[in-house]
Amino acid sequence: MKELEDRIRRDGIVRAGDVLKVDSFLNHQIDVRLFNDMGAEWARLFKDRHITKILTIEASGIGIAVIAAQHFGNIPVVFAKKTESINLDGEQWTTKVYSFTHKAYYTVIVAKRFLTADDHVLILDDFLANGAASSGLIDLCHQAGATVEGVGVAIEKGFQHGGDDLRRAGIELHSLAIVDAMDENTGAITFRDNDE
Amino acid sequence: MKELEDRIRRDGIVRAGDVLKVDSFLNHQIDVRLFNDMGAEWARLFKDRHITKILTIEASGIGIAVIAAQHFGNIPVVFAKKTESINLDGEQWTTKVYSFTHKAYYTVIVAKRFLTADDHVLILDDFLANGAASSGLIDLCHQAGATVEGVGVAIEKGFQHGGDDLRRAGIELHSLAIVDAMDENTGAITFRDNDE
Repeated sequence: MKELEDRIRRDGIVRAGDVLKVDSFLNHQIDVRLFNDMGAEWARLFKDRHITKILTIEASGIGIAVIAAQHFGNIPVVFAKKTESINLDGEQWTTKVYSFTHKAYYTVIVAKRFLTADDHVLILDDFLANGAASSGLIDLCHQAGATVEGVGVAIEKGFQHGGDDLRRAGIELHSLAIVDAMDENTGAITFRDNDE
Repeated sequence: MKELEDRIRRDGIVRAGDVLKVDSFLNHQIDVRLFNDMGAEWARLFKDRHITKILTIEASGIGIAVIAAQHFGNIPVVFAKKTESINLDGEQWTTKVYSFTHKAYYTVIVAKRFLTADDHVLILDDFLANGAASSGLIDLCHQAGATVEGVGVAIEKGFQHGGDDLRRAGIELHSLAIVDAMDENTGAITFRDNDE
């Protein structure tokens, strides 16, 4: 998606350790107009799928998911939570996700009431790198007997294996921008040719 | 806001310890159409304020804030983060917020780049009870020299002191539903007459 690539080139900051900071428009400060364009693009890319629910994970995925839902007929959004909360029932699907950022496993939960065998799910998130979060959300769907119709991410780090793992598993994945290389010294970002 | 009150009556669940579960439409599963109606209502209520940015706090506030932003001319949304992340600069406004849920203080941060003296801020969140989160966000605005134009919350627990504290401090507060009493035995919920 050219608009997103242009924005990443303009406002993204490359840091040591394969960190791409996009906090001025994607995951700290949010550009709602850009999010609507992203949502419209996913609606176009997934138009042949029958999608009844969007699943994401807190926190950065939530804004992306709720804006995108408007382009899928205002279907419900469910966001998985990263720790147990006293405001939840005991009735949850749970999975463990490894965080490379924090070098620890955390528990991800979704109330069973909100993810069932009737659901046809589109999983949305801001980043896809090693695929740990996406795999956790897919696992929750499988536990629930829900159908995973596809995965959409804003930015895929193409030099990590998460995206290829999903494609190899037969998941329909649409990454709006795929970063194949970043240079922390020059700030240069190389995008994969991805004109869908 | 009658639509929100009706929805709370229909789908809200009262639990021991003054817990009101609204996770089927507000803070776990999200009804995007309702969020748009809430956003339109805040736009009406704050129409005389010059608002340039919406500030909220992860995670439940994010969906509310990005949908509402569409009714304020797609102004930027910034969400405060609850812990330090390696993806953030050292340049942050920080404050401490006490969580009655987790009985502990946590650190809340906003990058200084995204909250400045030029900003006229509307603070939005899902719940207002003791006011700890709102006060933390107001503190961040004061540190930045930003102008707090008002606070909007979906549900105020009117039997706790947070809302009255804000009103007493001269903050323009618009709570779309104010719960004055809840009965965990009958499930009955009493709303304050709040026809704005």
